[in-house]
Amino acid sequence: MSHARAAVHRAARVAPAFAALSGARRAELLGRIADALDARADELVAVAGQETDLPEARLRGELARTTAQLRKFGAVVTEGAYLEATVDHADPGDTPPRPDLRRMLRPIGPVAVFAASNFPFAFSVAGGDTASALAVGCPVIVKTHPGHPGTSAFTATLVAAALAEGGAPDGVFQTVEGFEEGLELVDADELEAVAFTGSLRGGRALLDRCTARERPIPFYGELGSLNPVVVTPDADAARGAALAAGLAGSFQLGDGQFCTKPGLVLVPEGSALEAALPDSVVAGEPRMLTPAIADGYASGRDRAAAIPGVEVLAGGGGATAPTVLAADAATLLAHRELLDEVFGPVTVLVRYRDAAALQEVLETLEGSLTMTLHAEPEEDVTGLADWMAGRAGRVLFGGWPTGVAVSWAQHHGGPWPATNTVFTSVGATAVRRFLRPVAYQDAPASALPEALHDDNPLGIPRRVDGVYVLPATPAG
Amino acid sequence: MSHARAAVHRAARVAPAFAALSGARRAELLGRIADALDARADELVAVAGQETDLPEARLRGELARTTAQLRKFGAVVTEGAYLEATVDHADPGDTPPRPDLRRMLRPIGPVAVFAASNFPFAFSVAGGDTASALAVGCPVIVKTHPGHPGTSAFTATLVAAALAEGGAPDGVFQTVEGFEEGLELVDADELEAVAFTGSLRGGRALLDRCTARERPIPFYGELGSLNPVVVTPDADAARGAALAAGLAGSFQLGDGQFCTKPGLVLVPEGSALEAALPDSVVAGEPRMLTPAIADGYASGRDRAAAIPGVEVLAGGGGATAPTVLAADAATLLAHRELLDEVFGPVTVLVRYRDAAALQEVLETLEGSLTMTLHAEPEEDVTGLADWMAGRAGRVLFGGWPTGVAVSWAQHHGGPWPATNTVFTSVGATAVRRFLRPVAYQDAPASALPEALHDDNPLGIPRRVDGVYVLPATPAG
Repeated sequence: MSHARAAVHRAARVAPAFAALSGARRAELLGRIADALDARADELVAVAGQETDLPEARLRGELARTTAQLRKFGAVVTEGAYLEATVDHADPGDTPPRPDLRRMLRPIGPVAVFAASNFPFAFSVAGGDTASALAVGCPVIVKTHPGHPGTSAFTATLVAAALAEGGAPDGVFQTVEGFEEGLELVDADELEAVAFTGSLRGGRALLDRCTARERPIPFYGELGSLNPVVVTPDADAARGAALAAGLAGSFQLGDGQFCTKPGLVLVPEGSALEAALPDSVVAGEPRMLTPAIADGYASGRDRAAAIPGVEVLAGGGGATAPTVLAADAATLLAHRELLDEVFGPVTVLVRYRDAAALQEVLETLEGSLTMTLHAEPEEDVTGLADWMAGRAGRVLFGGWPTGVAVSWAQHHGGPWPATNTVFTSVGATAVRRFLRPVAYQDAPASALPEALHDDNPLGIPRRVDGVYVLPATPAG
Repeated sequence: MSHARAAVHRAARVAPAFAALSGARRAELLGRIADALDARADELVAVAGQETDLPEARLRGELARTTAQLRKFGAVVTEGAYLEATVDHADPGDTPPRPDLRRMLRPIGPVAVFAASNFPFAFSVAGGDTASALAVGCPVIVKTHPGHPGTSAFTATLVAAALAEGGAPDGVFQTVEGFEEGLELVDADELEAVAFTGSLRGGRALLDRCTARERPIPFYGELGSLNPVVVTPDADAARGAALAAGLAGSFQLGDGQFCTKPGLVLVPEGSALEAALPDSVVAGEPRMLTPAIADGYASGRDRAAAIPGVEVLAGGGGATAPTVLAADAATLLAHRELLDEVFGPVTVLVRYRDAAALQEVLETLEGSLTMTLHAEPEEDVTGLADWMAGRAGRVLFGGWPTGVAVSWAQHHGGPWPATNTVFTSVGATAVRRFLRPVAYQDAPASALPEALHDDNPLGIPRRVDGVYVLPATPAG
């Protein structure tokens, strides 16, 4: 048996014991992990900095986000509404007649997490996918990313020690390395779900593999995104230079290595934004996260720049130089390959003449994690906002899409090719991916989980006989 | 363009207008459909009776369930908690800093519904999948089942007329017929989800096809189930004959043509249940729903009966005769094909000698829609109940799995091969399949849906700054 298959088997054996822990107990374990990472922040940031060349301030911020996220998921499962506990007492008069039915969500079982290259903390070994799976009681096997092996190993050691010290069942957190082990993981009989953040190509292959199993399992993939931005003529006239500065900061942040990087900006012809943007582009050739990403960036950018009608407004020279491309709407409509995501510090300005031309370009767009609108307060943007909400997971007004807050209302997901799922991978509801409902019919109290007992001993919000009821004394 | 593709295109064009209707408006439309079906109940039941040979009382009950279900989904979307409306005001002090974020669920778009053979009303043209998609604002294209074409056409006419009279946008409800049109439907560019109730083989093919699309879409499949039942020695001793009567009623109900039919019953050796059951088996050869189902039943049952060590306790003679098979645990362990679902009036008793043998058989079971336990009140069944909850979507105590109530706490789903999803196809939460989240960041009030306005004009339950808040005056 491969290491990966053995890891899944071990996780499956310990899954019931882990699932049996209370939400408060799992929250305590997540808190221990967060504390352990915070305590070693200087060393973690140093290792990650060496491996990824990301600046220290960014890495410190990302680690703080990561540990805050662990604690937030702990609060989510302590509060308990995530269980969707529902009690319907028997009602012989209903159509059809109703027995006593009680429903709640239960952990799905062992989850494989594929770490991303671009967030060595927040989307890696102890990142959001791991945190949300552990929070709800699913054992995790992380397939580490080869872009930051030392950071991964160090983090894994700290996580494992924190779990052991906290008394977690042995085997709820494991790691595997390498491409082949990753595939073995997906194929392992007892695996119940895969969470992935990475390229469309890699994600598509894993989705197909999850579906092709004898027993298909859910694949939760975040596969990158174009993140289009629309600037209205009024907004451009009122603050074009400021918008250029904001855009420059967003598309070059982290050398453009974010899934929420704005890759396409629709501007009016002759815009002040276009005039001002080239001055904000940083000279030089940043070191990218991995050589493969650097190669992919250069070739993708050069392919876009070579499209007839595309101009290089800034950069474009060196292999990894930040670059601004520009084209008229007609060029985009004739060359849809300009819409392919290029991971790295490049953005494409597309000029539109009037509202009709803007609409024509909008109709070509596929799903994205985000869409952003810059308009003036007096403009009626209802229709455009609604259209964006039909194509994106998050619609921003007057901001920039990089930077993803972690809260109850966050949604990080969007129609294909952004993701393949109706769930989020960031924010409180990310835990729903690793849960499935179970209904108990006419169960004696002794056979029911506490969440479904009549007297609500956990003090959690529940729906009882159709009415949502908040506990007098909330848990946590 | 095929009829199916044209239908999807039409549905996509009308989707925004339908999504814009309020929950209360859509509830009114569902009520109109229910009223229209109730008003023509005599004729509907007559047509369905001719086509399916199901008894009139069953069909009347199923139609009542169907119209009750339409009204219940109306109540769900009027109340509004299903939107998961969430408001997080800006918090610059959060880690990372948080802008104003507001999240809600939105309709996914055009949905294809594949009608089932065995419920000409409740899982067909105006059944649960159609009701839940329409309830949340998704246009529906039903692929009708060839087993009851007249019932389907009649129902479709009534539904379309009710929607038109209620002022629904034209094109939110359509039907297509035939195998090839069904495939065209799944392949249509603008389709957003498929809901299916039917065989494992058919569902698997559709799942693969949904995934193989250039833009994969979710497949929500209910693919049948073995529905194992465990009878403890104490329960058998206390009421074996009564259990036999209950089992006989359940496995022969509707001539065994239910996805929740108990297909495997684990009984102690020498059980009173086994002794009493043969007398409760009905003689004769019922007409099945379709010739294909009749053929499948006879061949599946005969294949199981031919396994060395399997005895025919009752029936087994005629092509569609209700049948009871029995075998020792060792036979099942040596011949796992005895676990293949046979759709129709057959159940298999498997005798176990002791708790260890029972456990060994349990470990061979795959996922099911239901698992059922018959035990005595003084027995400790916690462990067994928990084990069942890990393998089934609904765990029953002291009852029989046929008959599925429609309520908030119902769950009709289970681990593969029962279904392929973490959602239900029956009960209030079935609507979640046809929704996806969207977050609005720093949106002006004018660009926000009403569900997310600060003053909560819809009067719906919401989570605000992390705290669940119930409206002073609930909607509806």
